[in-house]
Parts: sequence; structure tokens; C-alpha cells
Amino acid sequence: MQIILLSGGSGKRLWPLSNDVRSKQFIKMFYGEDGQLESMVQRVYRQIKTAAPSADITIATSKKQASAIHNQLGDKVDICVEPTRRDTFPAIALAAMYLKDEKNIPENETVIVCPVDPYVDNSYFECFNELADMVQTGKYNLNLMGVEPTYPSEKYGYIIPENKDHISKVAEFKEKPDLPTAEKYLAQGALWNCGVFAFKLGYVVNRAKELLDYHSYKDLHKYYGEATKISFDYAVVEHEDSIGSVRYNGSWKDIGSWNTFAEEMHEPVIGKAVMDDTCENTNIINELNIPILAMGAKDMIIAASNDGILVADKHQSSYIKPYAEKMEQQVMYAEKSWGSFTVLDVLPESMIIKVVLLPQHQLHYHSHEHREEVWTIVSGEGTVIIDGKRRDVSDGDVVRLPIGSKHTVIASTRLVINETQIGKEISVEDKIKYEMPEF
Amino acid sequence: MQIILLSGGSGKRLWPLSNDVRSKQFIKMFYGEDGQLESMVQRVYRQIKTAAPSADITIATSKKQASAIHNQLGDKVDICVEPTRRDTFPAIALAAMYLKDEKNIPENETVIVCPVDPYVDNSYFECFNELADMVQTGKYNLNLMGVEPTYPSEKYGYIIPENKDHISKVAEFKEKPDLPTAEKYLAQGALWNCGVFAFKLGYVVNRAKELLDYHSYKDLHKYYGEATKISFDYAVVEHEDSIGSVRYNGSWKDIGSWNTFAEEMHEPVIGKAVMDDTCENTNIINELNIPILAMGAKDMIIAASNDGILVADKHQSSYIKPYAEKMEQQVMYAEKSWGSFTVLDVLPESMIIKVVLLPQHQLHYHSHEHREEVWTIVSGEGTVIIDGKRRDVSDGDVVRLPIGSKHTVIASTRLVINETQIGKEISVEDKIKYEMPEF
Repeated sequence: MQIILLSGGSGKRLWPLSNDVRSKQFIKMFYGEDGQLESMVQRVYRQIKTAAPSADITIATSKKQASAIHNQLGDKVDICVEPTRRDTFPAIALAAMYLKDEKNIPENETVIVCPVDPYVDNSYFECFNELADMVQTGKYNLNLMGVEPTYPSEKYGYIIPENKDHISKVAEFKEKPDLPTAEKYLAQGALWNCGVFAFKLGYVVNRAKELLDYHSYKDLHKYYGEATKISFDYAVVEHEDSIGSVRYNGSWKDIGSWNTFAEEMHEPVIGKAVMDDTCENTNIINELNIPILAMGAKDMIIAASNDGILVADKHQSSYIKPYAEKMEQQVMYAEKSWGSFTVLDVLPESMIIKVVLLPQHQLHYHSHEHREEVWTIVSGEGTVIIDGKRRDVSDGDVVRLPIGSKHTVIASTRLVINETQIGKEISVEDKIKYEMPEF
Repeated sequence: MQIILLSGGSGKRLWPLSNDVRSKQFIKMFYGEDGQLESMVQRVYRQIKTAAPSADITIATSKKQASAIHNQLGDKVDICVEPTRRDTFPAIALAAMYLKDEKNIPENETVIVCPVDPYVDNSYFECFNELADMVQTGKYNLNLMGVEPTYPSEKYGYIIPENKDHISKVAEFKEKPDLPTAEKYLAQGALWNCGVFAFKLGYVVNRAKELLDYHSYKDLHKYYGEATKISFDYAVVEHEDSIGSVRYNGSWKDIGSWNTFAEEMHEPVIGKAVMDDTCENTNIINELNIPILAMGAKDMIIAASNDGILVADKHQSSYIKPYAEKMEQQVMYAEKSWGSFTVLDVLPESMIIKVVLLPQHQLHYHSHEHREEVWTIVSGEGTVIIDGKRRDVSDGDVVRLPIGSKHTVIASTRLVINETQIGKEISVEDKIKYEMPEF
């Protein structure tokens, strides 16, 4: 079984924890089975590995997110990188071509497409095994999982099956309805469309060839920017008559707002924080090193990260988007494939940054045109390369990197660097990458 | 006219802005006349210089606060340092002896003692001129300024004058009363005791000699720790029959809690912060570099510093003390006579610190037994001395300071240093000071 996880959107609705480089699925917000905090991506990945251990997972995402995914799921996770963002049909088509051409998956193998961020029980992913059986019987070209509604929601699209059986042919699809219509759908045995599609690999490969007129992964990847932005629902589902659906009746939630997030927090507090006895229905998530003290806070969300601090009435927090969009764009913390960086201070014509490299990882070999840098090794061991010369470093060592010098560092152990950037124009754009020299 | 400003207490009631090293009087919380933020100490100092330009000011305080006072008021301000804390009578006695012996002030000169933190109009200090006239007429041995009450407060001590004249002999003093008693005092023309005492220098010098049995500043300073802890009210005022009072009828406030502080903020926000339209009666003071977004906050105080973040209902904030006392003791920011330091990050066996030196200022010549340090000069110019050797430095330069090395830096211009401390036991106590070498 092949699973394609769609990891999309940057999203500001969970500001200050989500930002331009960190989508909400990367926020470590839930306590996992080992008591460690885990993100939505980590949770879903772990759940799939438990419910369907033999499933082979590919994550379809943008270049921007690839670093964070490697950071959180490890180097070995398979990523199909979309060159630009083109909506779900081109993304699923590219991933399907990738499975066929790059991973040599046979065209009759089951593929299940799933968003990366449903907040669900393990039984959600156990239901994937039923979907896979449906695909392999070949009764329907396309197979969907639908969520048994718990109330007549106006927020979701609906799948209307022909009958109320556990598995049924789909009669039609409905957009977000008004309340009376939603009630009517529920009486009919309708399901919420949760964006889980299953098919034989060949099915989508053929759709890709027909609709996009590209016949290989390499081709599609190269001309990806020219593909029309269109969703899988509009491009494929609406034109397909042979669709089956299976009913999932466990919990299902979209953690897209601070309100829903707070509802799922197991403890009212994550991170350093104290609440006095007069606080009520308040949640705190603090990623900073300094403590938060809340007194007499009622129905509030308090969230702090290196990007900022949110203090919001829970109801009011649902209107955060325009405010978050106006907040400063400077990214103060980012997870990269090699580790992470944290901006510790922004000064006139200089910045102080903490760089953490994971063991056996390294930066790109690169130079800057408008800034010099000084590295102080705070802890760990590694090898620095400057203009082709190697030098071993450990804690207390200092490396000066003049403007224009090509440099990198390779971490032998976990390596923490205190970096001072000095220059009139300091920007993340000021970076020229090079091939690593050979030794 | 000599003015002794008493600068006391560490105080946690304005946590996270006040802490063990920063008392509330050093928080920059008010917009001064030039539109710049100023602290209570700066405000009072400026007001005295305006209302009584010829007054000579001496600040009586602890060693701990001397650095912050020099930082905020400049190097030239006169400080009489108490070797330990012994309550107001020994403090005033020491300052009086200091005026007599160290500043050679004649015994018949007027001395006015005043707390460093009243939040008042300039007219409060103009009233000092009336007090000085009272002292010089010699009618009373001791002269007090009393505040015309605006309501029957249970929080303050009362001065009961013999009559309601602007200047009157004092009949008696009363401790904090209950409400009916306070109402009775007001009907009698009583005044709030605001801790302002005036006398001829010789008066307190004689009390010091009698009660403490020390006859010089040097002697008293040396044996200061042996002096009994007793207030000026109990030691002197209660035993004096010849006391006059003058009525001050302007505004007077003790900014001792977040609630009173918020009432005096001219703008609801200080620092980087945004409030949405649904916030009501909410104040934000943000000393951090990152923005605060408040949504739907009602009747709240939000305060953020390098020490922590407070989110409190205004009423509830008055119960902060026990919570603030339990907060971490690590001081993340401190103003020193030579500039300031900010802890940017605390890591296992290391710390990252930003050191800012004011122009023409320098650190003590010192060494550490348990940590090495690396300095990266971020901006500015100066001279480093390590083990007696001088070296000029400017931005981008790096200085390694091995364990045990004696070192300092003298700033030619404003100098910013990114300091990495590395060692198993990092502590502010680990500091051995030396005499500066001669060149």
C-alpha cells in the first residue's frame, strides 16, 4: 500500500506558533505515546506506521517544507517536492508519477491520498486497510473514506452514498450546505468528505497523462509551473461515475484554529507557565525559555514563541488571520533538515543567531556577499571547511568567516554555534551555494 | 538645600519588570518631557532639578542599586551607599554623616529626606522650598510635608496638625486607621504621611551620635551592619515634640502595583504590541523585541520582559507577590554603571550574553575560575586588556578569555559584545576582581 500525505499551506491562524516557514502541522503541540511533544506530522506518521505497518509513505509538499519534514521525521522519509504550489490535482498527479517512475511502483498497486493534518484516532488509519481492499477488488475506480457526521455541520462538503451500508456506491457530492440542508443529508446517511481518496496507481497516472499531457515524472516536474491550479475534486472526482465510499465513525477533527487546538490539549499548559487559582478555561503554550504567569485569565489562549506572543479570548482568536498577517515577517526560529536556527537578537547592522546542527549533518557549502560572520562553538564537535581548507573544532573554538568566504560545518556530534552576523544588509537571501569540495 | 533621596526595596509586585536587581523605581514606564521613556528615579530627579534647581541631591541606597542609578542618572550623581540594609533611621543617619564629613556641608543647612518613588506633580517638589523656609526659621526642630487626603484611606499613616492652616504645629501621628477613624481624621484636617522630613543637618547628625554612638561617617559606615534596624519614624519622629507640617494639595500616588501603574500610563501600550478592537481597559508594556497581539482582552495587564511574561486580570494582579517570588531567580537583564547585560540564551554548561558598554566606560578588571569566555565585538570600538596586555578591538574582532585570565574592556564608543560563556559551573558569583594594571 502506498500512502501519499499531502502537506500544504503555510497558515497564520495559529500565529505565533505557525508562520511563513512553519505550517501548523509542524508545531509540537501534542503529547505522543512516549510523553514527548509531537507535531501533527509526527503524530499522523506514527499513527500510520502503527495502523498499517507495511504502508510505504510519500509526502507531497513544497520545497519550503521539505527541511522541516526531514527535521521532524528523519532523513529517510520519502518526499515528492512540488516545484511550485499548484493545488491538489497537480500535486497528486506529480506524486503518482513519482511513485511510478522514481520508485518503480506497479500500476495496479493501491494508493491512498490523505491530508497530513487530520486529528484522529488510530482507527482512522486502520480504515485505510478496508479502503485498500476496496481498491484491490476493483469494483470502483475511485474509493473514498467518509466521516460519519456527529452533527449537521455547515463547514464541510458531503458525500451522499446510495445507501447507509458500511460500503456503498457514491450517488453524489455536495458542497458546504446550510443547516436545514445539512440535516437532510444526515437523514440520508451522508458522510463528511475528509479528503481521503484511494485508487490503483495506474488510475491517476492515466488521468495525469490525459489532463496534463505529461508522460513522465521528469517531464511533469520540469513543466510543473505551467499546470493549471485545480483541485483533485474538480479535476477527477466530479467526472468519475464509479466511486465507492467506506464509513469511518471515529473522531475526526481539523486543528485549524486556536479554539480547536485548545480543545485537544491534554494539559492546560505546555512549556514554562503558572496559572493562579482564578484562571478558568485557559490554555497556555509557551515555546520561550522565560516563564508565563497568568492570573485571573478566563477563556483565554496564551501562546508564545520566538515570533511573538498571543493573548486572546478564545472566541476572538478565530479572527486572528488579518492581524497575524500584519505581524513582522522576520522569522525568528526555523527547523531545517540539518537542525535549527534561532534569532537571539536583532541589532543595527548585526544579528546574533544560535545554530544547532544534528549529529552527522552539515550546512550547505555557501558564502555571503554582504556580511561577515563569526562562529563561537558553544558545544559539540565538528569540522569546519573555509575556502576548501578543513579544520576540526570543538567548544570554545572561534571561526571567522570574512565576506565572500565559502564555508560550511559538518557536525560530528550535536553542535551548537553562537553566530554573530555583521553587515549593512543582512538578509536570508544573501547566500550563494556551491558544490562541496572533494578531499 | 540638600535633598536625600531614599531608594529602597527590591520588590516583586511589578514582576516581570521588577526583580531582585531591578526595583520598580528603575522601570522605564513613563513618557518624559522629551517623549523618551523614563523611570521613576529619572522622573523624580528631573522634577527636583526643575522645581528646586539649586538643590544638591544625594541618593541613599544599597550597593546593589548603585549601578542602576549611575546607569540611569549618569556617573556624576552622588550616592551614599549603605553597606547593608538597616531601615530608614540608620540610612538617613549615614547620609547625614556623609553630607557633613564627606561633602563638608555646614550643620545649619537644610536637609530634606524624600522617598525616590512618589508619582507626583512638579508642585510637590516646589513645596520643598516652603519646607526649607520652615527649617531655616527654626520654629520647629523637624518639619514634615503632608498630603491633603482625597478620600478616607485605610492604607496610609496620618499626620494630625493642631489646626487646618497651611503650616501648623503637629499634634500627633496615627497609624493606618479603619474607615470610620479615617473619616474622623479627615474632618480634623489630617494629612497623609508621605515620608518627607526636613531639618537642619546638625539635627540628625546629633541624633545619630546620640542613638548610634558613632561620631563620624567613616565609623558609622564601618560598623553599619551592627546598627539596629529601626525606622526614622520610630527612632526620631515619635520622640520629637517640636514638629511642624506643611500641606501639599496636589496629586500623589504610590505606583506600587500593576493596577496603579496602569492608571498612570498615558498610552495603553508601551513597546511592540497590537490590540484588536474588542480589547477593553487593557494595558500592555513590552520590553521584548517580539510583538504582542492581544485579542478580546478585558481589564487586563500584559507585561513582558527578559524575565518573563505576565497576563493578569487587573484586580487579580494585586495578589502577584507570592507568585512572583516563586518565579525563577535567574536575572536575564540588568543595568550596570558601565552599561547593561542581557542573557540571550541559557544552554547546558553555557550561556550566551549580550554586553553593552557605554562610551568611556569599562568593566572591572576580573577573572573567572570556572568558565572560559569568548567575546565577539558586534559593534563599536574599544580596548581589551588581558593579563596586562592591551589590544584595540572593533566590530568583527574576537577575544578568547581562557579560565583564570584577568580581563576587561574599555569602551571608546558604545560597544556591543556577544559573549559566550562555557563552563560546568556558570555563576555570577564566579568573579575575582583586581586592581587595573598601570600603563
